[in-house]
Amino acid sequence: MIPENNRLQRIFFIFIGLILTCRTFGMDICDKVDEDKNYIDLVNPFVDSHRSRWFFFSSACRPFGMVSLSPDTDTEHSWGSGYLYGSKQIRCFSHVHNWQMSGVAVMPTVGEFKGHLGMNAYQSAFTHDGEIAKPGYHKVRLTDYDITAELTSTMRVGFHCYTFPKSDSSYILFDTGAFLAHGPTAYSEVWKVSDKEIAGWEIMERTGRRPKDTPVYFYAQLSKPMDEIVSWREGRLEPDSNPERISGKNAGMAVRFKTRNDEKVMLKVAISYVSVEQARKNMLAELPGWDFEQVKQASFSEWNDWLGRIEVEGGSREQQIKLYTDLWHALLGRHVVSDADGHYMDMTSDFPRIRQIPLGEDGKPLYNHHNFDAWWGSHWSLNILWSMAYPEVMDNFCNTMTDMYQNGGLIPRGPSGGNYTYVMIGDPAVSFFASAYNKGICNYDAELAYEGLRKNAFVGGIRDHAGYEHSKTAHSGGMKYYEERGYVPDGRKDVEGMHITGASMTLEYAYQDWCLAQMAKTMGKLQDYEFFMKRSKNYRHLWNPESGYMQPRGIDGDWLPCFDPLELTEKGGFCESNSAIYSHYVPHDMTGLIELYGGADKYIERLNANFEKSEPYGFFRSNKTKEGNWTDYGNQPGTGMAHLFNYAGAPWLTQKWVRKVKAAYSDVTPYGGYRDDEDQGQMGALGVLMAIGLFEVDGGCAEKPFYEITSPLFDKVTIHLDNRYYPGKTFQIITVGNSADNMYIQRASFNGKKWNKCWFYHEDFIKGGTLELQLGTTPNKKWGIEEFPPSSVSSDKD
Amino acid sequence: MIPENNRLQRIFFIFIGLILTCRTFGMDICDKVDEDKNYIDLVNPFVDSHRSRWFFFSSACRPFGMVSLSPDTDTEHSWGSGYLYGSKQIRCFSHVHNWQMSGVAVMPTVGEFKGHLGMNAYQSAFTHDGEIAKPGYHKVRLTDYDITAELTSTMRVGFHCYTFPKSDSSYILFDTGAFLAHGPTAYSEVWKVSDKEIAGWEIMERTGRRPKDTPVYFYAQLSKPMDEIVSWREGRLEPDSNPERISGKNAGMAVRFKTRNDEKVMLKVAISYVSVEQARKNMLAELPGWDFEQVKQASFSEWNDWLGRIEVEGGSREQQIKLYTDLWHALLGRHVVSDADGHYMDMTSDFPRIRQIPLGEDGKPLYNHHNFDAWWGSHWSLNILWSMAYPEVMDNFCNTMTDMYQNGGLIPRGPSGGNYTYVMIGDPAVSFFASAYNKGICNYDAELAYEGLRKNAFVGGIRDHAGYEHSKTAHSGGMKYYEERGYVPDGRKDVEGMHITGASMTLEYAYQDWCLAQMAKTMGKLQDYEFFMKRSKNYRHLWNPESGYMQPRGIDGDWLPCFDPLELTEKGGFCESNSAIYSHYVPHDMTGLIELYGGADKYIERLNANFEKSEPYGFFRSNKTKEGNWTDYGNQPGTGMAHLFNYAGAPWLTQKWVRKVKAAYSDVTPYGGYRDDEDQGQMGALGVLMAIGLFEVDGGCAEKPFYEITSPLFDKVTIHLDNRYYPGKTFQIITVGNSADNMYIQRASFNGKKWNKCWFYHEDFIKGGTLELQLGTTPNKKWGIEEFPPSSVSSDKD
Repeated sequence: MIPENNRLQRIFFIFIGLILTCRTFGMDICDKVDEDKNYIDLVNPFVDSHRSRWFFFSSACRPFGMVSLSPDTDTEHSWGSGYLYGSKQIRCFSHVHNWQMSGVAVMPTVGEFKGHLGMNAYQSAFTHDGEIAKPGYHKVRLTDYDITAELTSTMRVGFHCYTFPKSDSSYILFDTGAFLAHGPTAYSEVWKVSDKEIAGWEIMERTGRRPKDTPVYFYAQLSKPMDEIVSWREGRLEPDSNPERISGKNAGMAVRFKTRNDEKVMLKVAISYVSVEQARKNMLAELPGWDFEQVKQASFSEWNDWLGRIEVEGGSREQQIKLYTDLWHALLGRHVVSDADGHYMDMTSDFPRIRQIPLGEDGKPLYNHHNFDAWWGSHWSLNILWSMAYPEVMDNFCNTMTDMYQNGGLIPRGPSGGNYTYVMIGDPAVSFFASAYNKGICNYDAELAYEGLRKNAFVGGIRDHAGYEHSKTAHSGGMKYYEERGYVPDGRKDVEGMHITGASMTLEYAYQDWCLAQMAKTMGKLQDYEFFMKRSKNYRHLWNPESGYMQPRGIDGDWLPCFDPLELTEKGGFCESNSAIYSHYVPHDMTGLIELYGGADKYIERLNANFEKSEPYGFFRSNKTKEGNWTDYGNQPGTGMAHLFNYAGAPWLTQKWVRKVKAAYSDVTPYGGYRDDEDQGQMGALGVLMAIGLFEVDGGCAEKPFYEITSPLFDKVTIHLDNRYYPGKTFQIITVGNSADNMYIQRASFNGKKWNKCWFYHEDFIKGGTLELQLGTTPNKKWGIEEFPPSSVSSDKD
Repeated sequence: MIPENNRLQRIFFIFIGLILTCRTFGMDICDKVDEDKNYIDLVNPFVDSHRSRWFFFSSACRPFGMVSLSPDTDTEHSWGSGYLYGSKQIRCFSHVHNWQMSGVAVMPTVGEFKGHLGMNAYQSAFTHDGEIAKPGYHKVRLTDYDITAELTSTMRVGFHCYTFPKSDSSYILFDTGAFLAHGPTAYSEVWKVSDKEIAGWEIMERTGRRPKDTPVYFYAQLSKPMDEIVSWREGRLEPDSNPERISGKNAGMAVRFKTRNDEKVMLKVAISYVSVEQARKNMLAELPGWDFEQVKQASFSEWNDWLGRIEVEGGSREQQIKLYTDLWHALLGRHVVSDADGHYMDMTSDFPRIRQIPLGEDGKPLYNHHNFDAWWGSHWSLNILWSMAYPEVMDNFCNTMTDMYQNGGLIPRGPSGGNYTYVMIGDPAVSFFASAYNKGICNYDAELAYEGLRKNAFVGGIRDHAGYEHSKTAHSGGMKYYEERGYVPDGRKDVEGMHITGASMTLEYAYQDWCLAQMAKTMGKLQDYEFFMKRSKNYRHLWNPESGYMQPRGIDGDWLPCFDPLELTEKGGFCESNSAIYSHYVPHDMTGLIELYGGADKYIERLNANFEKSEPYGFFRSNKTKEGNWTDYGNQPGTGMAHLFNYAGAPWLTQKWVRKVKAAYSDVTPYGGYRDDEDQGQMGALGVLMAIGLFEVDGGCAEKPFYEITSPLFDKVTIHLDNRYYPGKTFQIITVGNSADNMYIQRASFNGKKWNKCWFYHEDFIKGGTLELQLGTTPNKKWGIEEFPPSSVSSDKD
């Protein structure tokens, strides 16, 4: 049960949230978008924005936009920062909301100049009244200054339209030295190029996560010539010597205009991680003109195209809003970092280099490079969603990682601004590659990628870099032990880094070995296939038949004492999770795992108990009480659990618990929806998959990938297939008799034929087709138990 | 007369200096250099080093070396900094001693670690005992630490060899955040690459002269693996979190070793203005190995080759030392800034860009880019010397300037790190180009260069940027007035910049117009030729026939009141000089000037009086008394005066006063030699020209250039001609009967034929040949008065 206080609080927030949501969306509808495909109106960026993470909220942003422009209400942390719905002030509009990156804070003000005094002085109260936030657009009123700010963007250019009151002292501040998110701006330089142009650069100071100082460059154009330049440094206005250029720590520059009442002054800010010149080129390439409305509509149109690849009918409006908000997050958080012409900054080595992405025949880069938090757990979210509906996205990321391998010698885990960050543990990139490659998405150098992935699977590879262990002699990932013993013990000495839990490493490495084996098999590397298949059984070293749990072993090989399956901290041996959850983490060999549990019945019993015990806690871990920590849909390691019943012959329980989990994460107010870290589209993608009723427990990495079926929330789901990759036009899922109670699949047909399997092959999916599901209130326990796992997988067994 | 105190002081210093010099050179001879060509032993880097300017002293440096490595005894000013002979401490060894540039301070220490406490704490006393400084090599003992430091270099790599005592705490400090010379290091980042590699970069904070922050990058290798890294920031040692990388203001890093007694630890530091990667490439290209002795000998050998292009016999040893020390300065101060592979940083615009110098068939850059203070006055020094003996140097600089025009829209005046600095006034580059082009040195895009030079001659060109006026709407150079009125008035309003004196602008512009006309004529641009020839007469607008002086005019056209021909400050109307000197500043039309004075006799009388009145003051201006300020061989505007007698039919007076001036600047101790600003080789080059008896009052810019003859100091001067440019092998000047008293040319022969002209054409010079001069104690007033100026010049007259 949720504690009473929390419960009342939640009900209150949901009530307030719904009112606000309705009002907001009421206004949105006024904006003219293609009326046939108005998916953007089903996205509510405010969902769960009452608490946020720097990269969670980006309203004026294209899909994967290099510029992620939005109002910042809170600026000085990686968490609880960016746009927070409950905050009272807007401190700036900044252009970079990325994993370990931030930059270019801009703010319009009126009246007494306060730029040099910092954000605490010049921030403005704002009102949700009249506020609009949509994919590609934000409108908000700064009440202290009587300024209405509108924001939109292209991929690499932020576009601001400020409606000023009448004033002789209207300013636009470029607070280039501002502290933003992850750390201070270590240094900045900003200068006037002309009466209508400002340029500069900022150094994001290295953090414990992004180990190198990383510059962001910008080039800005104003729609109206400035009357005056004001510059400052370290809290003091600069005297008149060369005010047109300022540099240092806590430096900044502002432009002053006279404005008439309701005068619109527009500002375009292009960024680059290569140079000011490249930022300017990005603007020239993408946004030479000044038609704000046109750019806004183009952004809406682009978002509609992307969102519309997955069409739904039926379900409640809230369910549709949650779906498209989830989908928006899945297409938002992992931003592009390469320039329009394909230049990018390679920070992988001790020798930062400007590099060039290969160009196609049209003279444009063949792909973009991206910034992203690790793929940790994304085999149950982004990998599946993107490879179905956005295969070109997989290619972009695979190319980013392959280039980084070529540049720096390692396939990355969470690259930021061209740096390695070594976030989390293991090598989750291997599941990303394996699913892409085995689904035929392979517009990258797969041999080179494989070489890098194989390197990662041994001592000296990225697995050896535990969370944020940057040292060149990294070893905290324990690969020496894994290679020698088949598991990584806990209690190792001389370890560094934040996540050093050997038990979770062992389980993840085993899965990753299997992913590599599956890729190797497709590539004809049979010796590797055999080797890694064998290693993929290493999960068994942690199974304690006496306790019936996966347990951490000590350096001496014994089980660690004081075992508690609900312990969430690292002393429990598992990374950001516990044994209760990780004891189900064998995505690649559920048959083997079920055997360890003593067969299907016992497994179902145990797994079902997990869900029942955590249901009162909303399937969400608590740091206050351990009681509910039997599942956790707020963090990656547990996000495949509800789908595991399929593997034990109880698809109806997958149907049941997926629906229940989905319901627990269905909030579409600013005060709920994800409960914890949305994590750059991962939880969004998981939400989409649960809502449309498709999943892949093995991450889609099998040599012959297949999808698992559960009951969707909607009457009809249409996935538009990308014809550059897949021959079919659409894949549809039609439900009959769908309702909140009718959650159980009674029977099914696939392309008109009776279908008694709870899965189908990817090769059938890409041909296009229709899956029809008859739903009912009571389980049909006989449906879906035929031939699962597929024989193509079973043949892998040892 | 020199005041008595100063006189005694000087005698004392000369005495001490001579002792030190002899000792130093006594040690030098031990070093093995090609015994036939030991010019480096005739260079004494200590000359006049008791006071210095940052770029004056660079011992471990190749000709025009990108790395200019030397000990720094004083670090926090542009003047009185670098290596000062009288200082007691060495604060660091730094790698960049340039016009407005500095960087990469390194220091070995032993014992208690003091790196974080700054140079005041870790500096060491040193001793001149055993110290050696030569072109390409410096050896000095740090007595506080019992360390002997030896320094040498390649073009782009500094090479250190430190002999340590036995210690567990031997350190090499990389004080990347140190304040060096012109301003603070605004920011730096430094990191460990491996146990034997350190890399980093520093931002030289913008100064009033170099208006943009400018980074210098470095890559260092150690001969011995370090035992430990120590890093610091803002005076505090960093705790253990990521000590292998540090950044910020006042940051730095040190490496610690254990050393045996007398153990040599070597260090190589390569720099680049492009990137750390480029610095590394520079090291790989130039200095992959560790043979210190070989690199030192190679540097000696390279210097011998360069210095040996001008060979002298006879004269005193001190005269030879002064000659080669002068020549060394002329080949030293204007350092290369482009990388070994031709990459360079273009900072000319608001959009810094990495650019590439074109490569030749051998894959190497066709030329290098240079950093340099302006060419202000170099028409009487470097232009003449280089175009005779080092024509490829002219090409390098012409290409640097032409590229900057293409990149930034202006032929520069004093580029620093790829920036425009707008030092001084006018467009002295035009005389540089005109002399190069008219002497047939034209391996650059001359049409483009001409386009830029022509642009500079009008409103909006570089002349409009008075001293350090960076504004894009610069106008303090008064070109609007010059174009309208033919002169730049003084007392203009709304002027900015440091040098705003209209009278000197007018005189220099007139000369520069003539230079442009001469280049135009050779290029067949006859309309331009006519136009600029006409404008070159503008000097006449300043001639006040009543006073017989060039005088500043006010904005109303009247002569400025309170005229004082000896006034040195800007209120006198002349830039770093006065009317007494500038009234002789018409290098291109001495015939016209002499007419203004009322004919040759009156002119000779006036000019001779200048010399006689300033002789007691050593031909050097004084800021304390005006009495001697009738000449000034301590600053550029007056450095052609002694040669003007040739034009008035009195070559014997040129012979006399050149000898006397030369004697006044003959000191070869650390306490004299230049008296004022040597200025990146300009005073050195002037000294060489006076010593070898050749000059060009018009800067060698005439369509058909010619050299003026005076009596050399030596029995024989051999100039080795560069056969890539000139067909002849050597040009020799032989004197007969030369002595201190025998300063007057009695008669002469040119290639064996009697020669009664005080000049000869460049086209004869480049064929090679011999000029023989018979010298005597009394003037032969009839020698040398034939056909001067040459008819080719006279035909220019209006």
